[in-house]
Amino acid sequence: MPSRGDELAESGQKAVPKRPSCWMGGAARICFCPTVQAAQNPYPRGVNTLILGATGGIGQSLAHRLAGLVSRLWLSGRNGQILAGLARDLGAQAVPAELGHELEVQALAAEVGPLDLLIYAAGAVSKSSLRELSGADLERLTTANLGGLSLALKYATFNPNARVVVLGVYPDLITVPGLSAYVATKLGAEGLTNVARKEFRREGVRFCLVRLPAVATMLWAPLAGAPKTALHPDDAATRILEGVLAEPMPDVLEVRSA
Amino acid sequence: MPSRGDELAESGQKAVPKRPSCWMGGAARICFCPTVQAAQNPYPRGVNTLILGATGGIGQSLAHRLAGLVSRLWLSGRNGQILAGLARDLGAQAVPAELGHELEVQALAAEVGPLDLLIYAAGAVSKSSLRELSGADLERLTTANLGGLSLALKYATFNPNARVVVLGVYPDLITVPGLSAYVATKLGAEGLTNVARKEFRREGVRFCLVRLPAVATMLWAPLAGAPKTALHPDDAATRILEGVLAEPMPDVLEVRSA
Repeated sequence: MPSRGDELAESGQKAVPKRPSCWMGGAARICFCPTVQAAQNPYPRGVNTLILGATGGIGQSLAHRLAGLVSRLWLSGRNGQILAGLARDLGAQAVPAELGHELEVQALAAEVGPLDLLIYAAGAVSKSSLRELSGADLERLTTANLGGLSLALKYATFNPNARVVVLGVYPDLITVPGLSAYVATKLGAEGLTNVARKEFRREGVRFCLVRLPAVATMLWAPLAGAPKTALHPDDAATRILEGVLAEPMPDVLEVRSA
Repeated sequence: MPSRGDELAESGQKAVPKRPSCWMGGAARICFCPTVQAAQNPYPRGVNTLILGATGGIGQSLAHRLAGLVSRLWLSGRNGQILAGLARDLGAQAVPAELGHELEVQALAAEVGPLDLLIYAAGAVSKSSLRELSGADLERLTTANLGGLSLALKYATFNPNARVVVLGVYPDLITVPGLSAYVATKLGAEGLTNVARKEFRREGVRFCLVRLPAVATMLWAPLAGAPKTALHPDDAATRILEGVLAEPMPDVLEVRSA
């Protein structure tokens, strides 16, 4: 899985990886070297990675790209069956959890141990005018888009220089009739991330908010399908990782449509 | 209660009201004339006004300024005793409601009837790092700052050209450690308001998001008191009403510290 230009040697038209680049020296302890293997130690010095929302469209694409690249990959989601299959295919660890249940998130955080990379790719959407918005829908979106992130940050432990990646939006693109609960909870998560960045600075944890355009995932099912300009989830995942694995990681990564 | 310059005749150093200005002509049916009295009709043609969060610091100041200015003033809050006293003092109607209870909000909306002016002044704050944020606190702030607004807009009915006023924040001012839940829910409400503006356009309802600096209210109690530069709630209320009763009402009203 290629990262930014400093890990690629441009060779003609095709980028091929340079020798594996391990960023183990100095303050940067994170290593994205594909040759690093999980050691006996359950929490090896390396890239201990957790994807929350790993069974979603972008989450699965991220998992495929990170498998083999990081020393330990934990995949979490609500659908245990899909999750188990994905983890088996990728040699990853499945850790099902309901992001609305505090004890489950707490147990998950304890199980995965100190993280080097946490990607919050969970999310939910509903299309409903404010006149018709059900309390259940608002609660569901609040949990998936905002409350789960809050709980994850409450219980996650991090190695120094860890990175937290939150998948976000372009507010103007989604401020349309019918998406009030989605807009509210996604912008809430953005605000929470901005506070988290300040609170976790002392722990050496850095945060990246990724602004995503439309991505062709099942999230669009209740919206009558993704627009034609939507990014393929694989392309979105590639661009996300190019950005968030860069050094230094940007506070905000803007991914644009093709 | 003086409004903007077009309702004031500057006379020397002191502004004195011109003759009452009724904006009853043309498309504008709202009347801010102080001489209009509530008629026998429970929903008189005039300014049927509801303040949600009327027992808070800004809510009470808004209530004092609107009393006698609007034809009918409904005050809602959770503390029935304070609410009843305030309503009695001001000749207003007390309609206690718990903004987290959908049926109570629905009943409230039915009781107050079609509104010309709805002010969402409810709000809650807590100071807690993400590491210590309780689920109960996040839920309380979500209800007060976001969920209650969503429910109010679900059930409120409006006269043409009605105005909805949402008290908001300057995001940069509040993005500080300990305020993650406050930031998330206030920014969520801002996002919701921006969608509501589009959804309610067909009903002729306009929305104003008021950005407020620190205001010296009890909301600051858990934050060890308001800063010295905080606005007095009376000053905040005056500036809010000057802005939101103007024609045309701005989409965003920025109130600055003194």
